[in-house]
Amino acid sequence: MNFQAILDDIVATVKPQLGAQGQVASYIPALARVSPQQFGIALRTCDGLEAASGDFATPFSIQSMSKLFSLTMAMQHLGDALWQRIGREPSGNPFNSLVQLENEHGKPRNPFINAGAIAVADRLLSHGDGVGQLLELLSALCNEPVHLDPEVAQSEAETGFRNHALANFMKSFGKLDNPVAAVLDLYFHQCAIRMSCQQMARAAGYLCRDGRHPYRPGVAVVSASQARRVNALMLTCGTYDAAGEFAYRIGLPCKSGVGGGIVAVVPDQLTLCVWSPALDASGNSLLGMQALELFAARTGLSIF
Amino acid sequence: MNFQAILDDIVATVKPQLGAQGQVASYIPALARVSPQQFGIALRTCDGLEAASGDFATPFSIQSMSKLFSLTMAMQHLGDALWQRIGREPSGNPFNSLVQLENEHGKPRNPFINAGAIAVADRLLSHGDGVGQLLELLSALCNEPVHLDPEVAQSEAETGFRNHALANFMKSFGKLDNPVAAVLDLYFHQCAIRMSCQQMARAAGYLCRDGRHPYRPGVAVVSASQARRVNALMLTCGTYDAAGEFAYRIGLPCKSGVGGGIVAVVPDQLTLCVWSPALDASGNSLLGMQALELFAARTGLSIF
Amino acid sequence: MNFQAILDDIVATVKPQLGAQGQVASYIPALARVSPQQFGIALRTCDGLEAASGDFATPFSIQSMSKLFSLTMAMQHLGDALWQRIGREPSGNPFNSLVQLENEHGKPRNPFINAGAIAVADRLLSHGDGVGQLLELLSALCNEPVHLDPEVAQSEAETGFRNHALANFMKSFGKLDNPVAAVLDLYFHQCAIRMSCQQMARAAGYLCRDGRHPYRPGVAVVSASQARRVNALMLTCGTYDAAGEFAYRIGLPCKSGVGGGIVAVVPDQLTLCVWSPALDASGNSLLGMQALELFAARTGLSIF
Amino acid sequence: MNFQAILDDIVATVKPQLGAQGQVASYIPALARVSPQQFGIALRTCDGLEAASGDFATPFSIQSMSKLFSLTMAMQHLGDALWQRIGREPSGNPFNSLVQLENEHGKPRNPFINAGAIAVADRLLSHGDGVGQLLELLSALCNEPVHLDPEVAQSEAETGFRNHALANFMKSFGKLDNPVAAVLDLYFHQCAIRMSCQQMARAAGYLCRDGRHPYRPGVAVVSASQARRVNALMLTCGTYDAAGEFAYRIGLPCKSGVGGGIVAVVPDQLTLCVWSPALDASGNSLLGMQALELFAARTGLSIF
Repeated sequence: MNFQAILDDIVATVKPQLGAQGQVASYIPALARVSPQQFGIALRTCDGLEAASGDFATPFSIQSMSKLFSLTMAMQHLGDALWQRIGREPSGNPFNSLVQLENEHGKPRNPFINAGAIAVADRLLSHGDGVGQLLELLSALCNEPVHLDPEVAQSEAETGFRNHALANFMKSFGKLDNPVAAVLDLYFHQCAIRMSCQQMARAAGYLCRDGRHPYRPGVAVVSASQARRVNALMLTCGTYDAAGEFAYRIGLPCKSGVGGGIVAVVPDQLTLCVWSPALDASGNSLLGMQALELFAARTGLSIF
Repeated sequence: MNFQAILDDIVATVKPQLGAQGQVASYIPALARVSPQQFGIALRTCDGLEAASGDFATPFSIQSMSKLFSLTMAMQHLGDALWQRIGREPSGNPFNSLVQLENEHGKPRNPFINAGAIAVADRLLSHGDGVGQLLELLSALCNEPVHLDPEVAQSEAETGFRNHALANFMKSFGKLDNPVAAVLDLYFHQCAIRMSCQQMARAAGYLCRDGRHPYRPGVAVVSASQARRVNALMLTCGTYDAAGEFAYRIGLPCKSGVGGGIVAVVPDQLTLCVWSPALDASGNSLLGMQALELFAARTGLSIF
Repeated sequence: MNFQAILDDIVATVKPQLGAQGQVASYIPALARVSPQQFGIALRTCDGLEAASGDFATPFSIQSMSKLFSLTMAMQHLGDALWQRIGREPSGNPFNSLVQLENEHGKPRNPFINAGAIAVADRLLSHGDGVGQLLELLSALCNEPVHLDPEVAQSEAETGFRNHALANFMKSFGKLDNPVAAVLDLYFHQCAIRMSCQQMARAAGYLCRDGRHPYRPGVAVVSASQARRVNALMLTCGTYDAAGEFAYRIGLPCKSGVGGGIVAVVPDQLTLCVWSPALDASGNSLLGMQALELFAARTGLSIF
Repeated sequence: MNFQAILDDIVATVKPQLGAQGQVASYIPALARVSPQQFGIALRTCDGLEAASGDFATPFSIQSMSKLFSLTMAMQHLGDALWQRIGREPSGNPFNSLVQLENEHGKPRNPFINAGAIAVADRLLSHGDGVGQLLELLSALCNEPVHLDPEVAQSEAETGFRNHALANFMKSFGKLDNPVAAVLDLYFHQCAIRMSCQQMARAAGYLCRDGRHPYRPGVAVVSASQARRVNALMLTCGTYDAAGEFAYRIGLPCKSGVGGGIVAVVPDQLTLCVWSPALDASGNSLLGMQALELFAARTGLSIF
């Protein structure tokens, strides 16, 4: 397939709609001032072929996409023991809801809602890892240095009252081992990591190649079975309360972030990242989702 | 792959555990008296190859597996208009919960929870279809006459108070067009259909062959896109509140029923049905789920 | 106190607002066609003094006010055993909500929400009582024959889907002993009883005189302790999800109905009934509530 | 009535059960080490007559009973404007639940659940008041200096994760104007105030005398109407999710705390405080509740 032509075509189709619909995340100033007039897309196949179009080289705040990699680190360290503290089911509720957490005594439904990612951060801290290790992993995975924006991390810490509430709530159930402040510090910093579409498409590459490192063929980031399971979790839980909609319309495992990025996996074939800052009501990139739908339609690629 | 050997091996592995764990559905006498000492498995590939082992020819009550075919009929007739009345998201709640239905004003989350299937039945009635049409569809799909057990339908009508509650609740929100009694009559009858593993593996065949009829190659049961979308719905919503667990452990679109059957799809390859009456706490066949996990592990087949 | 002057004054104050705000209950035709241009008020003291003004002699559909008397009958027969099936706490939810009932396994929070009154009806049936006994009790209490409107009962049966849902839901938890149809038949008939303000103020008289019958001084309708407890239940649960508001603004035990009536008790002093068909968002009579507030302010009568 | 004899009799009846049932609050060490073998009771009439028995002079941690006085201060300052941020309805949920707060966008149901009292603390801070003003009010009301236990306040701050969650949650909805840390600091300090039964019975005295100060007859603590409304709120919301039970069994406005104290009001007659540290499942003093029931039975005093 001529992926470059397909991506160029998607950019041409999507660009006229830039800024027409959706809202840039506005809960912190650093995100609110990002221009909605941006769209990038990049992919990398299992064989290392690449294609990219639009603003594919512009770094953006990866936000919840970081949950994919913190989960990966936690699976590396803990294996199935991780699931003692975190479930694996879709939540059926908004990503930052506390209702379910109360009914389920502080055990988050899955690692991709905020509460679940905070619980993963707690597990990483107990293992001795922090944001430094996460940046190292990401830099290795995309073969380039990756950084974070300290202003964004600071803003999230100052205004992320809902996340403070979630962490204290889990702590009240005895479900966090580390101090709330330390756990949130890691969480807010991981959300503030900045990457481009191209970097993200590269970094997620182990998910389409049975866990093998995209740039170090002999290294297993995770096992083949774990890679498949991360993909399964992305499909059922990766896009907030729109997971059913993504599966229905796009048919690929995806993980989104409120920075406007979405990374998708076509198992055994490629990984793909789109980015456009304006979000729909579920918190997923509006044009990003549309671009993925176009990509699935043009290529026929779908896990179903 | 030597599917017959794999299925025989699964039967040999699973048989010693028959009856040791789980509970046969007991809410109606006709289901409660089914012996838990039964296990069957059957598959049929896109090319028409078949393999089967254990009690694969024994008819059982398909129960919620019927929702797959009533949904198929509704998609044939209504296309996307169906989704005005029914959502496409995992519910995050037990299959017969009313809580979410209240918050969402009587619109069921998806067509595979009971409320959603009752809404589908209402749509079918408005289109002029009933259980006769559904039996015709199933008979054609598995190339053999399919029947229902009127005693089971009668028992469900007499004791299915939760379903009566669900239907009246939706009616109170103006979300059913037909009389509650007529809608439930169809729903209880469709749940009382009896099929064997082999018949079910055959009947679901259109889901692994882009919607084409398993026995009439020139006939499209649904479009290729619709078939993929049904698979997506099965994966995210097909196994009650264990959809995340199925995706994680098995990695295939599945639809289960409290009669103990589970049908699974490997897109572009095969459809598979397992049956064993003892259920786990989520209402899914305990050994059926274990057999599917063995199958996925032995064959390496997974959508992820 | 010159009660007649106070009631006349309230009528004069309230009349100009008749029909300006609020909505007549519209879920059945027989209620929807009641004119909102009506307002009545009547009281009767412990000593048998009476005052009344406005449309105090016009019969109206007592609806949920009947729950006061079905509860009284159930307490007569069962005493504290009644509370095995029904709670005594405010629900914090709308009167016809199913959410709480699911969390609490079919045991209604209190006898004044619909689910609770349906459970009371089930208890009465098991004791051998029906709507005939309830009409007898009411006729004796107000010293005049009391009737019901069969058209209203029929309409409620045909359109009361939410109540059908509630009853089937409780039945599914094993919390109703009698057939759903029989229980609802009693419930719909009790709601269709018609009384005037004057009749209601008389009938509730035992609640301000330690349980003694308003017209037969030697007869105890309920014990003194039971009468106080019914008053307590009215205060905490008698006005749907506005009980706190009633306590705060009016300070008297009240029971309302969607027919627009509200009966209030001043312990050891008097009972009072107001009626005006237009309702507020909680389902309580808008002008009735305002009239009670005026009455409390003018007389200084309050239990607090 | 010979109140001293009645109180002595209650002490004699209750003492043999000391320590037999219930649990002392254990969430902070300073409360957990309080001996359950203590029981005190004290009352003061509108005329200034006093009676007291048992451990009536032992100071205890008033905990949530402080909410009565912080509400009083807020009503003094803000009047009805207070209710823009806080509701007046029973919650129907445990005192520290977050579920309802999410559905109602951060507006607490009433001022006596934790979320509501935190909202009241925020209002007081905005008015320039802190724990110093609250201690002044209490000292004046009971005519003796009142202090707080800084160790308890510190412990609550360090371990009160649920309250940290509630405050951050409300802040996330924009429903707190002051910094979370400042609001919680006031809240944790007010809960750490220590008073004896006798002091509490005296301090609450304005609630049985139309708002007039118990020791300064010419001073109105609140208006007569406000005093009645505080009593109404105590009755419908003052005892966590057991308000219906208190109204049914005791029939008096009450406010309880997890330190084991309960203060009750008999309007126009007296205020009463009982204390015994062992709690029931709702968080109310087990023997305190039983003592109030005995008191109501022996004296016939009830608002119903």
